[in-house]
Amino acid sequence: MTVFLNGKLVPESEARVSVFDRSFLYGDGLFETIRVSNAKPFRWGQHLDRLQRGADFLGIEVPFSQKTLTGHAAELIARNGMAEALLRLTLSRGVGVRSYSPKGADRPTLAMTLHPLGAPTSAPAEPETPIRWRAHAARVRLPAGDALAQFKTCNKLAQIMARAEAESAGADEAVLLNTDGFVVEAASGNLFWIRNSVVHTPPLTDGILQGITRAVVFELCGQLRLRVQESRLRPGRLLGTDGVFVSLSSLGIVELSEIDGTALRRSPIVGQLFNAYRQLLQAECR
Amino acid sequence: MTVFLNGKLVPESEARVSVFDRSFLYGDGLFETIRVSNAKPFRWGQHLDRLQRGADFLGIEVPFSQKTLTGHAAELIARNGMAEALLRLTLSRGVGVRSYSPKGADRPTLAMTLHPLGAPTSAPAEPETPIRWRAHAARVRLPAGDALAQFKTCNKLAQIMARAEAESAGADEAVLLNTDGFVVEAASGNLFWIRNSVVHTPPLTDGILQGITRAVVFELCGQLRLRVQESRLRPGRLLGTDGVFVSLSSLGIVELSEIDGTALRRSPIVGQLFNAYRQLLQAECR
Repeated sequence: MTVFLNGKLVPESEARVSVFDRSFLYGDGLFETIRVSNAKPFRWGQHLDRLQRGADFLGIEVPFSQKTLTGHAAELIARNGMAEALLRLTLSRGVGVRSYSPKGADRPTLAMTLHPLGAPTSAPAEPETPIRWRAHAARVRLPAGDALAQFKTCNKLAQIMARAEAESAGADEAVLLNTDGFVVEAASGNLFWIRNSVVHTPPLTDGILQGITRAVVFELCGQLRLRVQESRLRPGRLLGTDGVFVSLSSLGIVELSEIDGTALRRSPIVGQLFNAYRQLLQAECR
Repeated sequence: MTVFLNGKLVPESEARVSVFDRSFLYGDGLFETIRVSNAKPFRWGQHLDRLQRGADFLGIEVPFSQKTLTGHAAELIARNGMAEALLRLTLSRGVGVRSYSPKGADRPTLAMTLHPLGAPTSAPAEPETPIRWRAHAARVRLPAGDALAQFKTCNKLAQIMARAEAESAGADEAVLLNTDGFVVEAASGNLFWIRNSVVHTPPLTDGILQGITRAVVFELCGQLRLRVQESRLRPGRLLGTDGVFVSLSSLGIVELSEIDGTALRRSPIVGQLFNAYRQLLQAECR
């Protein structure tokens, strides 16, 4: 495996950062996970834009232009011969002084790595139907109205603990609440539910990730003439909806089949969105 | 500078971890910051115990016994000839698969580094009076009742943003609220205030770090026959207290002189605790 690190393609064994790197010390960084299809990164520009917004918020300078990064990503994909993959881009504030203060850390670290497409499914998915995950309602809560939450930061312990909790409970994925008690996200992506043919998802102001695939779902709803609406939901009411799904860059759309053993209803809209997403991915990565 | 990394003392330039290390990717790790005085780490056992509790909570195995770590820490201090310093111990879950799931990451990374004692003060401190910091009330909020908060995890972006915000406002340190609107912590340590000769600090259940120096303050209050009480406080009411201080491993006790330009009262109790802390440090690290 070849890795991109600070301007160079290097073998995985040489892709190392200092123990003084602030993302290692504090998670002081950002990342993007980007689906690569037909050797092309899907919605690359949107991912780079979100990275830039997050970097502006954290006060980290992105050390390469978008054009340069685009070239390096293409090289990385070609060198590894991985036309169907996930590309992870990590931007860390780099090495600084020992302190929470970001002062003096002015040489950011930027790494890009490729990963095989995982298939963390409960059962083999058929070609035209969504993967289905069993969900678990996690105890760990996300802070309501967290300004940091909209960016994909390297502070992901809440998601890690939620996912570990789900796996211990025999589930595939966790559903997380915020500190106000509203359903906000899955560990690995944005959450949607369907009621009376309307697609609902929590508002960004509740402290959730501004997901690139979340925005794609909004586009697809437009194409399919489905109403989409930002709403708040208490966890108990997920069971009363017509269907629940998660949007995430790695897999697109994943249907939730149950929460802690209680089956969720299935809406045909989830399958429609799943297929529309697949078509869009193929069309844009031709 | 020599660094301890995974069982070996190595030069700083060789102290590197994989870009696939989960603390670099997600902040999936824990750390301790320990005051070294007279070449001895202060309250070392308590720091290692907290590390162990955090590791148990996150499901990370500490790869060395406490006895082995004690020997390595002594070697590190001797090799660097830094009798007065800060020792940072970082424990990461190590390299795993690309996913929030911790499965498969079973070779943790453990690093120890030494750092000069910082003096991030507004004004030079006299030998027998506490350092004084100007504080800023940060906008970023900590999740109320967060179970992760009691451990010193490598997810510190809220503290970093709060500190950066304070520095932009011309202050030295940030005071943070939780999502319920109560004062909970400073960016770098636990917060205390004094009212009618009683020492107050927020309860652990509000989502705060179980600080080693916080526990030392409780002990010192016992020695000085001061009442100490866990209380909740709205930020506006800090101005009405008799004095405010922060407890942190690196500096012990630091007095807050003002919040966003408004002076705080000064209680002689802060100076008493400051000196009692210095005496304890000297006595235990003889």
